[in-house]
Amino acid sequence: MLAPLDTLVGTLSRLPGLGRRSAGRAALALLREPERLLDPLVLALREARAEVTCCSRCGAFTVRSKNPCSFCSDATRDGSSVCVVEEPADLLTIESSGAFRGRYHVLGGKLSPVRHLGPERLRIAELKDRVAREGFTEILLALSTDMEGDATAGYLAEVLREWPSADAPVRLTRLAFGLPADSGVSYSDPLTLRRAIVHRCSVT
Amino acid sequence: MLAPLDTLVGTLSRLPGLGRRSAGRAALALLREPERLLDPLVLALREARAEVTCCSRCGAFTVRSKNPCSFCSDATRDGSSVCVVEEPADLLTIESSGAFRGRYHVLGGKLSPVRHLGPERLRIAELKDRVAREGFTEILLALSTDMEGDATAGYLAEVLREWPSADAPVRLTRLAFGLPADSGVSYSDPLTLRRAIVHRCSVT
Repeated sequence: MLAPLDTLVGTLSRLPGLGRRSAGRAALALLREPERLLDPLVLALREARAEVTCCSRCGAFTVRSKNPCSFCSDATRDGSSVCVVEEPADLLTIESSGAFRGRYHVLGGKLSPVRHLGPERLRIAELKDRVAREGFTEILLALSTDMEGDATAGYLAEVLREWPSADAPVRLTRLAFGLPADSGVSYSDPLTLRRAIVHRCSVT
Repeated sequence: MLAPLDTLVGTLSRLPGLGRRSAGRAALALLREPERLLDPLVLALREARAEVTCCSRCGAFTVRSKNPCSFCSDATRDGSSVCVVEEPADLLTIESSGAFRGRYHVLGGKLSPVRHLGPERLRIAELKDRVAREGFTEILLALSTDMEGDATAGYLAEVLREWPSADAPVRLTRLAFGLPADSGVSYSDPLTLRRAIVHRCSVT
């Protein structure tokens, strides 16, 4: 294949969700319609690169002209509760549920001994700082429901015990386990089902 | 969502194979690791934009410094046969089969009354020119096996009848119909099966 095309396919295929095959299709489409596809993409990438930054408080993406971000500076949001997510993308998903109106804190990942990601790589010190300074009374952990997410939750529970003080420690909660919406028993894996049974609730 | 991020997701989701959801994931990944993902992508896009062009002869992608392209200028390829494809991507797929060693000609699409793509949008005049000048004795049509592909093949057969001369017209062939490899009767749709039966061949 042509070297510049090959390089383009290579860089595109590093993106999540784009395999080598779809990256190839995307590259050919970009070159077939450069005015409609390639030029606007270069422009959007450069603009995002120049303007988007991480909120100095919560770690979510924001624009340089708005730091702290709109979630951190919105006075109408509940300042007593903070939701801890792994990635900025998780924040947007939770926000779209409309069920949480507090603050956010982006950890930047989860603990993973296998991938050598220790607690020093996560924004845990920043979280402790914010709990002390902003006076959150609840931390809602919205982490992955896999082994690494569980390990991260366990580590945070350890670190935040008796924080910010032994008399008034912050309350740690996590998202409920159970069946997903629009699903059913026969679509669920055994672990999900076991958790849904253990955490069963009354029909009201 | 943030305006620059929104624009980026919008431009990414115009690419084939990227829905709104995967474009969002890709955009966040690009911003999370700009040095590893975003900067190389901008570079690769700009380089491809600057260096890749269409071969003046066959219409396939090539680099500016190599025009006509390597398929057109390779003296070891069979100059008597030309394979007509819709898009440059098709050419690469056929080339990877290793079964064709002649020249190529990119039509630039197929006839589509529904999408108002008439013959004037396709590189048909260029094909006629090449048949006369390069003396191809066979045109292998490698078009889609849908109604639009069939209509295009029918139109080309009409246009190329008695071309370049009534005594020695070019022979038009097309890819065989039948079952795909690594498949079986129960995976096939009725039309494929009907064609596979009509075009059945002896077991040798």
